[in-house]
Amino acid sequence: MKILDECIIYVRREGMDVIAFSIVEFEQRLSKTRERMADAGIDVLLVTDPANMNYLSGYNAWSFYVHQALVVFLDEDQPYWIGRSMDASAARHTTWLDEAHIYPYADHYVQSSIRHPMDFICDLLRNKNRDKHVIALEMDAYYFTAKNYLQLTQGLPNATFIDGTNLINWIRIVKSDQEIEYIKKAAKISEKAMQVAFDMINEGVRECDVAAAISQAQISGTEEFGGDYPSIVPLLPTGEKTSACHLTWTEETFKHGEPVIIELAGCYRRYHSPLARTVVPGVPTEEMKKLGEVVVEGLNAALDVVKPGVTATEVETAWRQSIEKNGIKKESRIGYAMGLNYPPDWGEHTVSLRQGDHTVLEPNMTFHMIPTIELGHAGMEISESFRVTETGCEVLADFPRELYVKPNIRLA
Amino acid sequence: MKILDECIIYVRREGMDVIAFSIVEFEQRLSKTRERMADAGIDVLLVTDPANMNYLSGYNAWSFYVHQALVVFLDEDQPYWIGRSMDASAARHTTWLDEAHIYPYADHYVQSSIRHPMDFICDLLRNKNRDKHVIALEMDAYYFTAKNYLQLTQGLPNATFIDGTNLINWIRIVKSDQEIEYIKKAAKISEKAMQVAFDMINEGVRECDVAAAISQAQISGTEEFGGDYPSIVPLLPTGEKTSACHLTWTEETFKHGEPVIIELAGCYRRYHSPLARTVVPGVPTEEMKKLGEVVVEGLNAALDVVKPGVTATEVETAWRQSIEKNGIKKESRIGYAMGLNYPPDWGEHTVSLRQGDHTVLEPNMTFHMIPTIELGHAGMEISESFRVTETGCEVLADFPRELYVKPNIRLA
Repeated sequence: MKILDECIIYVRREGMDVIAFSIVEFEQRLSKTRERMADAGIDVLLVTDPANMNYLSGYNAWSFYVHQALVVFLDEDQPYWIGRSMDASAARHTTWLDEAHIYPYADHYVQSSIRHPMDFICDLLRNKNRDKHVIALEMDAYYFTAKNYLQLTQGLPNATFIDGTNLINWIRIVKSDQEIEYIKKAAKISEKAMQVAFDMINEGVRECDVAAAISQAQISGTEEFGGDYPSIVPLLPTGEKTSACHLTWTEETFKHGEPVIIELAGCYRRYHSPLARTVVPGVPTEEMKKLGEVVVEGLNAALDVVKPGVTATEVETAWRQSIEKNGIKKESRIGYAMGLNYPPDWGEHTVSLRQGDHTVLEPNMTFHMIPTIELGHAGMEISESFRVTETGCEVLADFPRELYVKPNIRLA
Repeated sequence: MKILDECIIYVRREGMDVIAFSIVEFEQRLSKTRERMADAGIDVLLVTDPANMNYLSGYNAWSFYVHQALVVFLDEDQPYWIGRSMDASAARHTTWLDEAHIYPYADHYVQSSIRHPMDFICDLLRNKNRDKHVIALEMDAYYFTAKNYLQLTQGLPNATFIDGTNLINWIRIVKSDQEIEYIKKAAKISEKAMQVAFDMINEGVRECDVAAAISQAQISGTEEFGGDYPSIVPLLPTGEKTSACHLTWTEETFKHGEPVIIELAGCYRRYHSPLARTVVPGVPTEEMKKLGEVVVEGLNAALDVVKPGVTATEVETAWRQSIEKNGIKKESRIGYAMGLNYPPDWGEHTVSLRQGDHTVLEPNMTFHMIPTIELGHAGMEISESFRVTETGCEVLADFPRELYVKPNIRLA
């Protein structure tokens, strides 16, 4: 394959420090994408989810705050990168695409009331004679706005538009060995960051100082490998606010006996391994102690049933039966597929571990099992990220699975 | 006003540590919003931009990875918060809204292929008899997806939908005294974080370790006040990659003589003050030295013309005339209004400092002036955030405005 040879040369020139996968792996991903496009009758797939852009091209820059896309043609080997002129250099440095496939738009399209980047994409599709074809759009992906949709449908009135949301996400769900290696590095970072939090949380310490130390540990990584930015900042609700699991930190200090939820992830080359724990500096209430035991028992029960052939809903059922036996009810899902992503989410938007999701687990799927409990006046999170193996389940981070009670309170 | 009294009680109960502004300020923001709605013939405004949700309600949680909204009725005092059931507690803790205005949807709407959160919003609007009204949508806001639009328009076939993108952003453009105070705190944090980067960058040091230290400084803040997470992670392109300004860090080490761009922000209670500098560890090329002088001269020229009554395009012209005299051309905008925001951007999406933007500057508008230069083989950023004062311009961070050359290289 001519294109493959060209690309290998390009990558050799640039060095593998920037591009995280071999061209062969990118080609396999694109082949699978084109297969699914063909099955669905799609001629053109407009990829705007930054994780999917990365998955197919390697593209990796904080440029998703302006409109950008990867355009995949069913009958062409390389996709086209479309982005702001200022970011074309980032595409040259981080993708395996050749120069002919890097298509920047002029800066006056950015946040303008008279021009829109999707007009530029309409022009490209017209110039390539794809304006009467079937074009799939990631209709519910972050950053693919309603305005994008209107500009495209109005600009290409003869095209047929269909919904391609999660088409690539569902390819991503089974990870390659290289991806698993990255996720395992991320898990190591998550252990380190959680330990930093455990060591530092104490009565009188400011929440922001603990969040800062977590972030430092996440990004610095280990001596052997550096960390990437997780797609979600450390979540750190305290006291009564532990019932509001997506709160970030404040300037307040930790209080004796008040629980703290820590949800974080390690991230390596955009691959995540999330981890959540609950800490009580001081003496926990009996309710919290009991809740910790119930959650761990439920987690263990759910992890125990994970293996290829089992469905997502069966995993959730194992959890549900365990906690109901202990008098606890929970309506929300207990986990989701995860891996490669960009802010605002490390979830993959494919499988949810919940009732009615009949997806069959396969080896090298990766999940974050996080059965958040909210009682209104308090909440708890103890989670594990895991990989489905050939025979069962591999928990990714090696960290004590329990409510952590920290009695050695700093004296006031 | 009955509602005002109720809310003040609520805030007093919860404490001002969580809610960053007085109810009076929120009420003023809502009054302005309703004025603009009335002018544009809007009955219902669906606010999905997380910054705009925060601006009107105080809502502040990392929950924007699922669909959420604030629904403003022209004829009601309080908006309705719509979000995932799991996040209703966060709304209770961070907004001034009463319980009747917190409308959570069940968890089975989340990332489902059979239910969509916008269906829930359609139900609300039907129940409130607003399904034949004029409804404005933030069509080009982050997180307001094409799917959102289709679900709403299909679910409410008798409503009239119009584009309300940036309606609230344009109210936000002039900051209150309290907002300016927060931005000034953010500027202090930006100074501290940049100093940490300057101190740490050296030949042989890993990029990830410097990014980690920057992040630590950003979140920890100062002894007097803690930092919030900036909407963009530290950007840290090096060497040739300085021409790709939105690259993040790698695990590689800094090299002698290779320039490093550092773009970061301080953030306090979601208010930003960005700052960029370029550093050369070792001996810079003559080209870089000269470029540094040209950029600083251009920045000074542009800052000098800032005052109320001057237009955005006039500020850009001052820059342009300065650099063209020195033989440099630049097509992209040199700055933008900034302040309150969430990932992926700290920009406000209102004014751009560029040719053709005739917005007239007013006191307490705040901007990030960042004339990024890309030469292909290298690039440079030296930026300032500033506030328009009654008579001119106040630069927010106090940090040397120059190319920083760091000759004290660590021995290999």
